[in-house]
Amino acid sequence: MRVLGVDPGLVATGYGAVEERGGRLQVVGVGTLRPTGADLADRLLALQEMFRPILAATAPEAVALEELYSHYQHPRTAILMGHARGVICLEAARQGVPVLDYSASEVKRAVAGTGRATKEQVGAMVAAQLGGLASAPDEHGSDALALAVCHLCRHRITLGARR
Amino acid sequence: MRVLGVDPGLVATGYGAVEERGGRLQVVGVGTLRPTGADLADRLLALQEMFRPILAATAPEAVALEELYSHYQHPRTAILMGHARGVICLEAARQGVPVLDYSASEVKRAVAGTGRATKEQVGAMVAAQLGGLASAPDEHGSDALALAVCHLCRHRITLGARR
Repeated sequence: MRVLGVDPGLVATGYGAVEERGGRLQVVGVGTLRPTGADLADRLLALQEMFRPILAATAPEAVALEELYSHYQHPRTAILMGHARGVICLEAARQGVPVLDYSASEVKRAVAGTGRATKEQVGAMVAAQLGGLASAPDEHGSDALALAVCHLCRHRITLGARR
Repeated sequence: MRVLGVDPGLVATGYGAVEERGGRLQVVGVGTLRPTGADLADRLLALQEMFRPILAATAPEAVALEELYSHYQHPRTAILMGHARGVICLEAARQGVPVLDYSASEVKRAVAGTGRATKEQVGAMVAAQLGGLASAPDEHGSDALALAVCHLCRHRITLGARR
């Protein structure tokens, strides 16, 4: 099973594709998209153009996002992020890939064992748990990988060796 | 000059195209899109599919939206609306049409003469000022037309007869 986690943003959109192979989690691809454009609309278009080939190339069974209202405390950021998130959802629907979302605390619990883990702890656990990471991803890529891991854990993947 | 006002929403997206012809404002098209789908992503895709031919057919010089933070008081609604607004912006950029935005009070002032006009007053003024309206549009269409009128007014169109 392969999942693409995405952490959408207009400045930086992290993505991380993780595959479960024989009970182990392998990174298939990870990176950060930095769409540019003269205005918001151009950046959204650039984001779609950048995201499309990544979604097509990784061919995941699902896209995992942080749930809609995670950024509630910062409404300005959240509304703007909503635009980028809409573009990711739209492109997923266009390519027929289902979108699932998880709360920040679910992600932390899945990756670091507690819903109160810090960003740094989550990043360290992601790097430790996943095979196939040539170098440590940036925070956007790491957050995206954590979402993918969360989705795989929720779908009852057993970490470690499997008979 | 022709402008397409859009009032984005996932349940209902109002649109209204207004053209300035010889100093008069004529409605070219008005309506409300009601995208359906199994989930948020499918609805965003449906919204883009519905909006694309309307934007192409009306061929406006600009798309006029309400500004990003108008719905600040209701963050849940605003974040969700952000997704729909992102799809409208994206499609406008794809078709090369610039997007401009206006505050709610600018729109009210342009249409009804005061930034404190009620929704009903705005609707009544839109219906009274515009030629080409076969019947009164619903509130989404009316809000979209008001945005188009606001854009035309801001671009120094003189209402009424012109020599």
